[in-house]
Amino acid sequence: MNFKNITGLFLFGVLALSCQQQNKSENTEAEKDLIFEKGAKITNANFIGTAWLNNLMNADSINTNSVGSVTFEPGARTNWHSHPTGQIILAIGGEGYYQEKDSPKKILHKGDVVKCPPNVPHWHGASPEKAFIQIAITSRQDGPTKWMYPVTEKEYLE
Amino acid sequence: MNFKNITGLFLFGVLALSCQQQNKSENTEAEKDLIFEKGAKITNANFIGTAWLNNLMNADSINTNSVGSVTFEPGARTNWHSHPTGQIILAIGGEGYYQEKDSPKKILHKGDVVKCPPNVPHWHGASPEKAFIQIAITSRQDGPTKWMYPVTEKEYLE
Repeated sequence: MNFKNITGLFLFGVLALSCQQQNKSENTEAEKDLIFEKGAKITNANFIGTAWLNNLMNADSINTNSVGSVTFEPGARTNWHSHPTGQIILAIGGEGYYQEKDSPKKILHKGDVVKCPPNVPHWHGASPEKAFIQIAITSRQDGPTKWMYPVTEKEYLE
Repeated sequence: MNFKNITGLFLFGVLALSCQQQNKSENTEAEKDLIFEKGAKITNANFIGTAWLNNLMNADSINTNSVGSVTFEPGARTNWHSHPTGQIILAIGGEGYYQEKDSPKKILHKGDVVKCPPNVPHWHGASPEKAFIQIAITSRQDGPTKWMYPVTEKEYLE
């Protein structure tokens, strides 16, 4: 093998590696799917695992909607809870779970939309293996969220 | 130049081109920023230019929010209009314009959030060069959108 061949092979290898690494980096969950900064770590007892909230808009006396971007790390989820006016969830990325009381769990991906009915206990969160990013639109028109009890490991996994 | 050199050069060229095209394709506006399908072309007279609506959620008697993903092609915009309960706009991608009556135009990019106050005339749309994708959250609690008159070319560009 002469010098030109070795140089060509080296350049080919460098380009192949660079192309592969760039694609890998562009496909990481956070880079691909986050639209809003993930915000602050949620520290209250209404969640299991690690979740982050970026409060995009607060309710006021006329426009009673609050809007938040929530990022659940794998395995993280809300406790069971309900909203007097219901809630709209937009799935932004990753893989999420959503379940209403006495209904089977739904699996959510980017582009899915859920309307939680008023006063129906439900929970949402990430799957065990993948993070989940959602935008939650919650009207405070008829009052605040009613928080209940944790989602057991059995409920989460079945 | 011998046969091995030509083959090496050819493979190098193919890989370089493939890497470049893949990056180009991953960076197109639609692939990078659309979360929801862009939906149906808007054909009513409340818009100038080409815009698309994916109606993600309809209002009902208890949860009065409607949520839509709107994609404005470059130069497209709404007419002047107002909402009795206001509106929340989430900028998802591209470059958008937003203006309230008697206020300067704002330029919106991915991650920006705007609350339109109740009954304040305003318009939104894409910049002349780039498409704009937004999610609009509109409460129908106090009634429907009031549509007014078109945004002139002078208003749009100044």
